[in-house]
Amino acid sequence: MKSYFITLEGPDGSGKSTMTRFLSEYLTQKGYEIVITREPGGTDISEDIRKIILDNKNTNIAYTTEALLYAASRAQHVHEKILPALNEGKIIICDRFVLSSLVYQGIARGLGIEEVKKINDFATQGLEPDLILLFDIDPEVSLRRKTKKGNADRLEKEDISFHKKVYSGYMNIKDMYYEKIKIVDASKDKHEVFNNIKELVDNLIK
Amino acid sequence: MKSYFITLEGPDGSGKSTMTRFLSEYLTQKGYEIVITREPGGTDISEDIRKIILDNKNTNIAYTTEALLYAASRAQHVHEKILPALNEGKIIICDRFVLSSLVYQGIARGLGIEEVKKINDFATQGLEPDLILLFDIDPEVSLRRKTKKGNADRLEKEDISFHKKVYSGYMNIKDMYYEKIKIVDASKDKHEVFNNIKELVDNLIK
Repeated sequence: MKSYFITLEGPDGSGKSTMTRFLSEYLTQKGYEIVITREPGGTDISEDIRKIILDNKNTNIAYTTEALLYAASRAQHVHEKILPALNEGKIIICDRFVLSSLVYQGIARGLGIEEVKKINDFATQGLEPDLILLFDIDPEVSLRRKTKKGNADRLEKEDISFHKKVYSGYMNIKDMYYEKIKIVDASKDKHEVFNNIKELVDNLIK
Repeated sequence: MKSYFITLEGPDGSGKSTMTRFLSEYLTQKGYEIVITREPGGTDISEDIRKIILDNKNTNIAYTTEALLYAASRAQHVHEKILPALNEGKIIICDRFVLSSLVYQGIARGLGIEEVKKINDFATQGLEPDLILLFDIDPEVSLRRKTKKGNADRLEKEDISFHKKVYSGYMNIKDMYYEKIKIVDASKDKHEVFNNIKELVDNLIK
């Protein structure tokens, strides 16, 4: 069976987790073998790295360190989980991938998209998603959804201007992977959002 | 007071720690403010990263992950410790730096010197040592010195062919930083080795 690598991108609170669950159920019913995963994380080593990145005590972490840790976590994830599953003909649904780093570290942190892309090309050894679902939502709305839950970590506590930079970063970066990126209007009702996603995924795997 | 950044490079067991101590005492007596540090490590965050790299349970760590973690650890070290000390006019003596990654990851692991240099240029944001002391010793001798102590970690337990690759890597890579790298014959008596180092350092800071 042909394998597919689908990633979900967009701000926190844009509904990526819910849609991952819906999509997984839908594809499982259709007979596909699904692997759900997320970044930063996805393997034991990646989770150890994730802990360093998100730890509230590490407020003095350099932007360069942060970007390299995300890339290291991704390198292990690709090596240990994503590539083996693709080789077994499965569909991978991954919450965040390279695009998140280009936006968060490259644009919002100001490290430069090209610089951050270089270290990520090293991390992925050239692997790219077949489809990138980009969740489009007003940053004020997504932030409110997320902080309402009361479990915001260090990155989520950044002020609203940071989140606005992330949002416009996502919207501006589309051209780099234009064909693979499909915009999902995440402000709509969740059933409408999922119908949109279903159509895009059906189109990929038909 | 003008600051200097001196790094010690070479295989484990080549005497870098002893010479760091000797050099620090010598320069302190001359009135310099010294900062001794080492890689991987040097800051709390870097030490957390070091633990992931050297953990004996992480035998399935990808070579790319390993290289990115070394670079992340270095990025934090440069940002939090090395640059501030240089800005205060101190002399930094650092056990291992970029050259170690070019040799261990670039050559011995086969990731490619240029590829590993790219992620390290990102990590250091262009900072280079003023003097690199390269400890030259037969890998069979240095390995015997080290394993005799009985506290070898995951990397030190690699077989002898790996250590030979590291050694020839160090010797072949000299040309990249030719002027800054000075070879120290580390097979000699420790007082002779230190006299050699003293001369090279005096020449730098005179």
